[in-house]
Amino acid sequence: MAIEAANEARPARIRLGMVGGGKDAFIGAVHRIAARLDDQFELVAGALSSTPEKARESGEMLGLAPDRIYGDFREMAIREARIRNGIEAVAIVTPNHVHYQAAREFLKRGIHVICDKPLTSTMADARKLMQLAGKSDALFILTHNYTGYPMVRQAREMVAAGELGEIRLIHVEYVQDWLSEPLEKSGAKQAVWRTDPARSGAGGSIGDIGTHAFNLASFVSGLRAEELCADLHTFVEGRQLDDNAHVMLRFAGGARGMLWSSQVAPGNENGLKLRIYGAKGGLEWAQEDPNRLWYAPLGEPKRLLTRSGAGAGPASLRVSRIPPGHPEGYLEGFANIYAEAARAILARREGRPVPPEVVYPTIEDGFAGMAFIDACIRSSQRNGAWVGLQIP
Amino acid sequence: MAIEAANEARPARIRLGMVGGGKDAFIGAVHRIAARLDDQFELVAGALSSTPEKARESGEMLGLAPDRIYGDFREMAIREARIRNGIEAVAIVTPNHVHYQAAREFLKRGIHVICDKPLTSTMADARKLMQLAGKSDALFILTHNYTGYPMVRQAREMVAAGELGEIRLIHVEYVQDWLSEPLEKSGAKQAVWRTDPARSGAGGSIGDIGTHAFNLASFVSGLRAEELCADLHTFVEGRQLDDNAHVMLRFAGGARGMLWSSQVAPGNENGLKLRIYGAKGGLEWAQEDPNRLWYAPLGEPKRLLTRSGAGAGPASLRVSRIPPGHPEGYLEGFANIYAEAARAILARREGRPVPPEVVYPTIEDGFAGMAFIDACIRSSQRNGAWVGLQIP
Amino acid sequence: MAIEAANEARPARIRLGMVGGGKDAFIGAVHRIAARLDDQFELVAGALSSTPEKARESGEMLGLAPDRIYGDFREMAIREARIRNGIEAVAIVTPNHVHYQAAREFLKRGIHVICDKPLTSTMADARKLMQLAGKSDALFILTHNYTGYPMVRQAREMVAAGELGEIRLIHVEYVQDWLSEPLEKSGAKQAVWRTDPARSGAGGSIGDIGTHAFNLASFVSGLRAEELCADLHTFVEGRQLDDNAHVMLRFAGGARGMLWSSQVAPGNENGLKLRIYGAKGGLEWAQEDPNRLWYAPLGEPKRLLTRSGAGAGPASLRVSRIPPGHPEGYLEGFANIYAEAARAILARREGRPVPPEVVYPTIEDGFAGMAFIDACIRSSQRNGAWVGLQIP
Amino acid sequence: MAIEAANEARPARIRLGMVGGGKDAFIGAVHRIAARLDDQFELVAGALSSTPEKARESGEMLGLAPDRIYGDFREMAIREARIRNGIEAVAIVTPNHVHYQAAREFLKRGIHVICDKPLTSTMADARKLMQLAGKSDALFILTHNYTGYPMVRQAREMVAAGELGEIRLIHVEYVQDWLSEPLEKSGAKQAVWRTDPARSGAGGSIGDIGTHAFNLASFVSGLRAEELCADLHTFVEGRQLDDNAHVMLRFAGGARGMLWSSQVAPGNENGLKLRIYGAKGGLEWAQEDPNRLWYAPLGEPKRLLTRSGAGAGPASLRVSRIPPGHPEGYLEGFANIYAEAARAILARREGRPVPPEVVYPTIEDGFAGMAFIDACIRSSQRNGAWVGLQIP
Repeated sequence: MAIEAANEARPARIRLGMVGGGKDAFIGAVHRIAARLDDQFELVAGALSSTPEKARESGEMLGLAPDRIYGDFREMAIREARIRNGIEAVAIVTPNHVHYQAAREFLKRGIHVICDKPLTSTMADARKLMQLAGKSDALFILTHNYTGYPMVRQAREMVAAGELGEIRLIHVEYVQDWLSEPLEKSGAKQAVWRTDPARSGAGGSIGDIGTHAFNLASFVSGLRAEELCADLHTFVEGRQLDDNAHVMLRFAGGARGMLWSSQVAPGNENGLKLRIYGAKGGLEWAQEDPNRLWYAPLGEPKRLLTRSGAGAGPASLRVSRIPPGHPEGYLEGFANIYAEAARAILARREGRPVPPEVVYPTIEDGFAGMAFIDACIRSSQRNGAWVGLQIP
Repeated sequence: MAIEAANEARPARIRLGMVGGGKDAFIGAVHRIAARLDDQFELVAGALSSTPEKARESGEMLGLAPDRIYGDFREMAIREARIRNGIEAVAIVTPNHVHYQAAREFLKRGIHVICDKPLTSTMADARKLMQLAGKSDALFILTHNYTGYPMVRQAREMVAAGELGEIRLIHVEYVQDWLSEPLEKSGAKQAVWRTDPARSGAGGSIGDIGTHAFNLASFVSGLRAEELCADLHTFVEGRQLDDNAHVMLRFAGGARGMLWSSQVAPGNENGLKLRIYGAKGGLEWAQEDPNRLWYAPLGEPKRLLTRSGAGAGPASLRVSRIPPGHPEGYLEGFANIYAEAARAILARREGRPVPPEVVYPTIEDGFAGMAFIDACIRSSQRNGAWVGLQIP
Repeated sequence: MAIEAANEARPARIRLGMVGGGKDAFIGAVHRIAARLDDQFELVAGALSSTPEKARESGEMLGLAPDRIYGDFREMAIREARIRNGIEAVAIVTPNHVHYQAAREFLKRGIHVICDKPLTSTMADARKLMQLAGKSDALFILTHNYTGYPMVRQAREMVAAGELGEIRLIHVEYVQDWLSEPLEKSGAKQAVWRTDPARSGAGGSIGDIGTHAFNLASFVSGLRAEELCADLHTFVEGRQLDDNAHVMLRFAGGARGMLWSSQVAPGNENGLKLRIYGAKGGLEWAQEDPNRLWYAPLGEPKRLLTRSGAGAGPASLRVSRIPPGHPEGYLEGFANIYAEAARAILARREGRPVPPEVVYPTIEDGFAGMAFIDACIRSSQRNGAWVGLQIP
Repeated sequence: MAIEAANEARPARIRLGMVGGGKDAFIGAVHRIAARLDDQFELVAGALSSTPEKARESGEMLGLAPDRIYGDFREMAIREARIRNGIEAVAIVTPNHVHYQAAREFLKRGIHVICDKPLTSTMADARKLMQLAGKSDALFILTHNYTGYPMVRQAREMVAAGELGEIRLIHVEYVQDWLSEPLEKSGAKQAVWRTDPARSGAGGSIGDIGTHAFNLASFVSGLRAEELCADLHTFVEGRQLDDNAHVMLRFAGGARGMLWSSQVAPGNENGLKLRIYGAKGGLEWAQEDPNRLWYAPLGEPKRLLTRSGAGAGPASLRVSRIPPGHPEGYLEGFANIYAEAARAILARREGRPVPPEVVYPTIEDGFAGMAFIDACIRSSQRNGAWVGLQIP
């Protein structure tokens, strides 16, 4: 057992509300665990379902006070903004098409927003939300949770420090198999909404998981994608959205890349992998083995960096809780987004600037993700022509 | 993203106290995260350090009410047993030599005890504690946390179901490198007490990590070790306890095994590995890759079982929180011990029997661990003669 | 040690000549080991270098009779075709631009040709050579050696048997790092000719290793690529040919794929990997770990098939020499191409039809590889437009 | 494709005979491939079976001249020693109980012996053979073939150079599953003789594969085992020899170790693994992944050394044939023993001393292996008491 102390919770919990995340939801429970892990947030209010009865039941199950269980997020925003000790932040964990409307209500009342990805279900909504956020004093944190993994932070730090030299190649993929068959026809809730354009937006696999891959590539490389060409495809008959996407990328400065998202590749559970190569070295990371990072300095043996182990730098150490060799996982990575959010929110609360080392995905990242989806669809509609990404 | 809902917290939190786990401690923070993860416990009191000033500071940092910050565990036991809404359970996370005395104070007042391993620092204390626990109405839960990993539960279930046939071989090891040099001389707190017989007891590596390996082997195989022969050794000059142990084992029913614990094997962080083979198949699991379990049915290709994936049975599914492909780690496994403890404590609170599927390491497991340490030392003193384990 | 007998050489060695493969060459020595491994060939003549002095020295080093060391391949073809016990087959292991002329001389004299890939350095040569081979009685075997690996045969057999269902996705890559720096400027022989369009042809990485990847995808899937779009790039300044290629593919029947070849990805030695997914299952194989094949039947745990192990079928068993768990490597795989060639040549010698289970890459495969290079270049020149592959 | 030239055969082949290795044998064919791979040997005579008919058939199948097919090894030794261009070396590939008698006939006639392991079937034979070899001018090479793997050479070189510091721990295992059931009852030839004390000697798994593990540990560490304690066991009912062995070891200089051999661990094919740790670093190697070697310098990230890759030293480079990333396997490693034998035999033929870099297992290594088996049995008979190894 190594010797660093685990991260320690501090008092002064942030009062948190939640939109969505009721009884059958998957990601709401993940957000709640993530918020709880470091003891920085206290869930005190919720509009947990669009079905009032379910909203009430879910709120009771979570032990919310009856007067802070809301049937509607607008009502919650209005009242919580007004009452003493109302929520300081809200987690929006609904299907995509609700993100914009919900976020708007809270942002305009100065309540910080922690929002699931993709940002919205349409480009138009994304643009409006970005403008709104730009004018609000409230913070906007997007839960591209994979950026919370310590070894992803480590990779980003090494790239920024020039340890790979100039970046040439970025290969990223997010591959699953759970939609290999028409699961949505069986009524499985997660499958139904994620394959429904009305709720998910125009992207299927590209929106649900492709945006994670795209965000990860951008986050680690620090490079802006300028152009892409895409071949989206739906393999399962009758499905309305893509279930597989092949994308080639060109980045500012000359790097090139490939991105693959799939929900129909048997044997893959959550195969998010990033490989990035520069003139002087390479890095490889896989989400299913998140505590390790391969580092290959050109002309030297490959090295296996481990979380909190020898070779780990400050960017990963500050988001690690336990010694090397004891794996941290998905929930810990997700919780790091909440921990960063907490640091930023507490700074705001106390009138301090957000410390420079605090890093979380922003509304700009969310917009870039929407621009990515949009460009993939435009390219694919033009039979894979190269198109520009409209990232401001 | 797959479709199972994550575990959901229920209200009615258990009021928890803590002994030890103050500012510089490592494992106390882990216990607190584990207790918090599923929202079943609320830390309300603590005797967090034997140094009063540090106890106070630590308690304040954790947001405890001033009158529930104690300078002494006995004082805490007496008062908490008396006050309305006093603690229902206590976590004991001190160095080993304090376990017995602390546990006694709470057990005899009917407060449930969640205690770190090894059980005590001497066999005599272990015996007394086991008698005490036998007479108390309170539960005793030992945090042999590795038994909380879902795929360890999966392995145990498969062995019990006879999928390996009669067990023939058990190979287990827990290998580290952090004491390869005399770190204790530099004053590193973890190294100092873990190499000090007065605080650790008579076992060095064999007590600190060998007991975990031994417990894991017993937990998964369901077999009782009857005899062992051991070759303990101290490689680092001036160290008072063993830093490496080689052990051969014979189990009831005829299975045989090897156990290796080491703190001086460079390149190993927390290399706890179990391999178990029967007449019809084998299983292999490694703590650093805890979401996977290799299953080799004799004469068929090996299969890789994943947490919550195809092939996962009820024993692992009930302690999993998220879908396959999103790794759960050490903290989640640790939290499963707390979750099981919560289920048992709530059953007691409500006068129900503890449900049969609830599994956690007991005081008997703790005693078996002490008997293991004791047998290793006896054997090693007799130049590796085979000796019996005195497990009642 | 398992129990199958290793493959056994039979007498009646085939008299073999070699063009190229003199002293500094790399691949010539590999061909000679491959030809020797199963004792089916005897090297008796050679035109081992275009430099006469080197040809002579090389021939002597290999113990060739002085009158069968030739300074010129045409001279060798003419004389060997005429003498009693002249060569029955020739291995052509020169840089690419020589393949066509050399192969022509032997084919038209009825001498079987075993030729390195890619087929030629130009499409025009490829077309002429294919016509010539079509008219000749001699066999033409292309050493796309990776098709000789047993587990590649296993994968192909499983796909053909429908174990994956209808194929949807093919992901293949061949990634190296040895040209990350301008090695050709240092005069390194392998780097010089492989980056020289006059000797390599129009493809850099795409010709040297991309064709292997393309061939492997075709070989295992049994599918014909119909369209592709490509983004070729040269990262190292001053280099004349691509050192990285990104390609998207569409196959007859609707499968889609991605192909990546690179010589500039630090940390990759010979990273040839194939992943292929159908409606009912997936397969994954990596050249650097060639004795294993991952098989994922949809909805069941992944299985690790091993060479000669449980689950290995006849197509892989017939090209395996030793029991499972004892790795066979690159040379054994290469030798399997020679062993298949020997089976075909002996059948011809004895007037028998070539047995149906004998499989080796043909001139059609070579032509498909040339069409692949050509299409990549055409697409890339049109900024990645989708173009058809001109495979007859 | 990287740039080093492959090893090149030189003329002047060594005339080789073979004892054993007829039609149903396994290891004879392996020896023949190994002898052929680098073109240094020519098989010209054989006493391939103790059954005359089979000896004749086998010889014809291998293309031996009729007058050099012998029904008896003694006859072969006598005649070949007398004729012009008789064999210079003989490969003895029979079951163990024949080794001594056969080797004696050739050694005393000055014919070099390449002999399978274990050395003999009894300690008495081993002693006599060692004396005989000491007096003979002929060389004695034992095919502990795993010492031929390049990365094993690399490991040995690194230990000798002090890169691990003083060696503390050696963990080695050779684990199989092929005898999990009573295969010998089905008449499978390999199973029958390997479980028969009359042909194998007193060791079952410990003799067949445990000696390989022991030899590997000694070869890499350069340390002499002084004491061991062993727990041999037979799990399969009715079997006459051990099918599993647990051994603890103490080496000269203070290092300690564990050794495990098993033929009854389902899921293991040829799991020979070595882990060796010193005060400054550790190494890990596995036979099933032989081209890689993990190197962990204490306090630094682990490094993955690859055959012929960056970090490979002269001891491994001189026995590598092809560039990194193209796997070499079991046959190549076996062939390295033959290549070393050839270098030594050619030196003798030419009156030169054997070059110092030439390394192969000797009769002393063979004797040490016999002493290891003997000590294991003595210890096990005394219920695992520590016993000395009688290595001169």
